[in-house]
Amino acid sequence: MSPTITAFAQSPDRGRGLARDMRVRWAFEEVGQPYDVRLVSFLELKQAAHRALHPFGQIPTYQDGDLALFESGAIVFHIAERHAGLLPHDADARARAITWMFAALNTVEPPIVEREMAGYAERDKPWYAERLPILEGRIRDRLDELAARLGDADWLDGEFSAGDLLMVLVLRRLEGSGLLEEYPTLSAYVARGQARPAYQRAFDAQLAVFTAASRG
Amino acid sequence: MSPTITAFAQSPDRGRGLARDMRVRWAFEEVGQPYDVRLVSFLELKQAAHRALHPFGQIPTYQDGDLALFESGAIVFHIAERHAGLLPHDADARARAITWMFAALNTVEPPIVEREMAGYAERDKPWYAERLPILEGRIRDRLDELAARLGDADWLDGEFSAGDLLMVLVLRRLEGSGLLEEYPTLSAYVARGQARPAYQRAFDAQLAVFTAASRG
Repeated sequence: MSPTITAFAQSPDRGRGLARDMRVRWAFEEVGQPYDVRLVSFLELKQAAHRALHPFGQIPTYQDGDLALFESGAIVFHIAERHAGLLPHDADARARAITWMFAALNTVEPPIVEREMAGYAERDKPWYAERLPILEGRIRDRLDELAARLGDADWLDGEFSAGDLLMVLVLRRLEGSGLLEEYPTLSAYVARGQARPAYQRAFDAQLAVFTAASRG
Repeated sequence: MSPTITAFAQSPDRGRGLARDMRVRWAFEEVGQPYDVRLVSFLELKQAAHRALHPFGQIPTYQDGDLALFESGAIVFHIAERHAGLLPHDADARARAITWMFAALNTVEPPIVEREMAGYAERDKPWYAERLPILEGRIRDRLDELAARLGDADWLDGEFSAGDLLMVLVLRRLEGSGLLEEYPTLSAYVARGQARPAYQRAFDAQLAVFTAASRG
């Protein structure tokens, strides 16, 4: 039996591959492992059965026999630890790739999500226009630093790793903001990620869920 | 030679153990491994020599021979992987402990940091008073969910793990907000972490830096 992950029955991103199941789908595709997907409605997300799997009532989750995990970063790491293709064999290079996983999720993603949340929850507030440049300034600080470290390399540290996988998808959350376009090397980095065959397969799989739901 | 980590020469928390070097110090103490500390000034943080170690110009960093890491979560994991005491031996229990590491840093910490940042950067703005309940609502959502999962257990999943270590320190960032006090079981959880002898040794070590700097 393949592991089963959860994804939105109706993804709020309308099949753009920005929901966090995309991280796990891409990881499975990179390592060439099959997986099953169980779709969860917004109502089910907050119900006891799903909370038993995911205390914070989100997607994705991961189930494999008796093991149940949540948090996209943890699930990607779990896949990367068990199958070749997402973490280097060399111990030091492996530790650095894991560092980039945490950097993507704990340093780069939070200000990006904060801007996104403000767009949803505070767009009609009188302060929105004055706060937006503050939020974007914080994101630019991170992008400046990330671009400086990436330089003209293809990936953050040697070969493509789970750190790049998470960073590419975190940066994709800036789509539509115009911010990523200010950084040509980071835009090219994201495009390199998106050009990988494994990314394409994962993207198509999540898009198919949206297309079927729209038809349905 | 012991690994060397970096910490603030003058910690903005005035020795309260809220800076992120505390996470790494506590991890070293739990596994009984010695470590050296190099203090870094605010000026040095943003200079090229430190940026070479930490692209985002923060503390802590970790150096052990040729290996250089950053991100407190990644460093704690690196220590936990190499020494017994922070991750269970059982493979499934280990994966669940790692899940809690990511949950602490990617799900629970961001809204807490957002409130903290607003306190620094927006306290004098006309919208601060109206936004604060929004931010605190987001934190309460997370604490509700965390308290529901913890129940009356001592730790998040069986024995104390690196997931608890990070979660306890993330929750400590709420000190002074009054929010944690609304959740007696979470307050007791944090107190249990703080009562561990390894925590105490780590706390004393970071406090000694502040005390020496204040004298100096």
